[in-house]
Amino acid sequence: MSAVRELAPSVDRQRILSELRTFARIGYSPDGGINRLAFSRADRQARQVLLHRMRSLGLEPRVDAFGNVFGRLPVAREPDLPPVLVGSHLDAVPGGGRFDGAAGVVAALEVVAAIRQHGLVPRRPVEVVSFACEESSRFGRGTLGSALVAGTVEPEEILELRDARGLTVRRVLELVGLEPDRLALARRRPGDYSAYLELHIEQGRVLEETGARLGIVEAIAAPTRFRLELVGRADHSGATPMPFRRDALAGAAEVILAVERLAREAPGVVGTVGTIRVEPGAINVVPGRAELAIDVRSRDGTTKATVVAALRDEIDGIARRRGLGYALQTLTDEEPVVLHPALAALLERCAQERGAPALRMVSGAGHDAMQMARICPAGMLLVPSREGVSHSRQEWTPPDDIVLGTQILLDAVLHLAEHGVSAS
Amino acid sequence: MSAVRELAPSVDRQRILSELRTFARIGYSPDGGINRLAFSRADRQARQVLLHRMRSLGLEPRVDAFGNVFGRLPVAREPDLPPVLVGSHLDAVPGGGRFDGAAGVVAALEVVAAIRQHGLVPRRPVEVVSFACEESSRFGRGTLGSALVAGTVEPEEILELRDARGLTVRRVLELVGLEPDRLALARRRPGDYSAYLELHIEQGRVLEETGARLGIVEAIAAPTRFRLELVGRADHSGATPMPFRRDALAGAAEVILAVERLAREAPGVVGTVGTIRVEPGAINVVPGRAELAIDVRSRDGTTKATVVAALRDEIDGIARRRGLGYALQTLTDEEPVVLHPALAALLERCAQERGAPALRMVSGAGHDAMQMARICPAGMLLVPSREGVSHSRQEWTPPDDIVLGTQILLDAVLHLAEHGVSAS
Repeated sequence: MSAVRELAPSVDRQRILSELRTFARIGYSPDGGINRLAFSRADRQARQVLLHRMRSLGLEPRVDAFGNVFGRLPVAREPDLPPVLVGSHLDAVPGGGRFDGAAGVVAALEVVAAIRQHGLVPRRPVEVVSFACEESSRFGRGTLGSALVAGTVEPEEILELRDARGLTVRRVLELVGLEPDRLALARRRPGDYSAYLELHIEQGRVLEETGARLGIVEAIAAPTRFRLELVGRADHSGATPMPFRRDALAGAAEVILAVERLAREAPGVVGTVGTIRVEPGAINVVPGRAELAIDVRSRDGTTKATVVAALRDEIDGIARRRGLGYALQTLTDEEPVVLHPALAALLERCAQERGAPALRMVSGAGHDAMQMARICPAGMLLVPSREGVSHSRQEWTPPDDIVLGTQILLDAVLHLAEHGVSAS
Repeated sequence: MSAVRELAPSVDRQRILSELRTFARIGYSPDGGINRLAFSRADRQARQVLLHRMRSLGLEPRVDAFGNVFGRLPVAREPDLPPVLVGSHLDAVPGGGRFDGAAGVVAALEVVAAIRQHGLVPRRPVEVVSFACEESSRFGRGTLGSALVAGTVEPEEILELRDARGLTVRRVLELVGLEPDRLALARRRPGDYSAYLELHIEQGRVLEETGARLGIVEAIAAPTRFRLELVGRADHSGATPMPFRRDALAGAAEVILAVERLAREAPGVVGTVGTIRVEPGAINVVPGRAELAIDVRSRDGTTKATVVAALRDEIDGIARRRGLGYALQTLTDEEPVVLHPALAALLERCAQERGAPALRMVSGAGHDAMQMARICPAGMLLVPSREGVSHSRQEWTPPDDIVLGTQILLDAVLHLAEHGVSAS
């Protein structure tokens, strides 16, 4: 392989930070962080700003039926070759931060800005994308835009999902002038893109704890998620001796610790109970009902399946011993996605040539790259999140790390545009 | 002792059930059960109905500065002897049932109704009482009316307590025409009453499980209550490997199981975690904060103190091992109250003479009797709650049990009115 850095000009720090600030103002309030829920007014405003930027950079913009925004750089030596796609998303969780998603879109814009500024003419076209509705906050399910593009969901599977106000995806798309009946047209096929690259913030503390400045994602540990309802009996806390009780919360406590123990014991697995609710929920009443959400992830589908099976057994045993009824409902059960090894290797080489300490890792968070990996080689680059904080207005990535990540992204995109994936 | 039943006429089943129905209609809705929160419109209406009933029965009613309602039967052979006080409360938890409190007031009314009907003239006066604000639902603290009467709280300790709408006790009393500045006048002294008897539903399943139809309370296991806040770190559930976590909910789960285990191991102790709340409370975020309420009770203060001390140690150890911060705030720490042995013996004899299977027991629920026990001999009689359900519109006590309990109450009151406590 050629020395990639010699191909590439430097990215423009000021331009990157200025673009980040532009998007950080959309939907922002000083107390509430960024509110740019998918298809909200702020989300649509961000899409308009992105389209404007794309046009200024000479890209040919296109918005598909779901609101995914693409912008192709028409200058290429072989414009009929499948483009290199680079991007992320612009929607945000309620009260979110300025980096989650936006950092990757800004980095992708900088990639084409640098190419334009230095008058480079890549062999393959380069295309920027911002996928719609990456966050699950609105409809309970994330990466919807990229899933439609990759064809991993059918339009019918998502059109009737509802948001907290009861609006369906179909209704929301109609209200904002998109085309619910034409979602099938958003789909792209294997061969349509030569590769997909995404820069994203880590949302964890692995980079910070290990001192690495870049994470190179080998796999995305898509979650298996359950909703567990335990049903015991609400009794007076004073008037009910311990042997007479069927305490749903005590059962839930055993489940919570079983999730933790099973995840700890299996290499590369994480298991979390993030929500719990009890009824009736009074200080002097033994909880008669407990509802919790369980999230299990692993880079390896077999390991995850083993942990999930053991967990089902544990839950059954706990409920049986305690005389509790239970219902375990699977919310999602996605397979881990292995990203393309050649792209991981390329990103690692690019990092080495820039002298940046990089760490190969598994992304525990889901990303659009896991959808795109179904139709083209996909690679991901993570930049650090201070203290691992994300989905919060306290989200922070040092400017140096954003700039470094963008540089590596540019290096890799230019290499791919020249050589494609197979040659790297 | 003389055969108590020979003194006593029979209670009137129809009158008892009719009075129960009268109170069950006040604040009732078919979907919502009984809403008769202390000092609400419905609670005040119940007080007016009670005053009307007292007058019809020839009692001399009196409402004190806090809204406690007393009605003295003026017919007595020695009207200057301290009266025998009998009663309970009429306020209810939100969505409560028709028996909690009301059954005891109705039984007390029947005691005087039977005395009047049969033209009996007891030696000591008999007095009916309905204490105000027995339930903790409104101000987070219960048995306020009886505590003021018994002098176990000072008015200043309660006047600034607030309800869910932020109204203080002082303000609420002013709004309903009571006298917050004269609460001290509600206080009674040792010697003012010769005894206090209360009939109440069990609110547990001990009677049902053992087949007894009456419970004779030897002690009331007043609670020690804590609010525990555990503080860890909110992290992305996918992006944070298990060893990096400080999961507040997993820590809480250990505490919940420690409460259960310590209570099981100590005889006569119950321990409950009835509420839990986590933040941020999302399926994909490791909980950074958990808040729970712990309720520990025992008939024996020393045993309870031992369990509470062990629990404090456990919490400290759990937090230390997991790197969690915590704050443990004591909400209440009441001593168990031993009721008067002579009254328990009297109630037991009365039950025997009526051929009713009775069980000596500890009340895990708090009651006005535990306050009154500080200023006079106090006794309590429990009647079964179907399936132990209470604080719910499903609350149910079979009419036969209410009638039987009322009969035993009448027998005991008449005996006390003749002989006082020391002679029994």
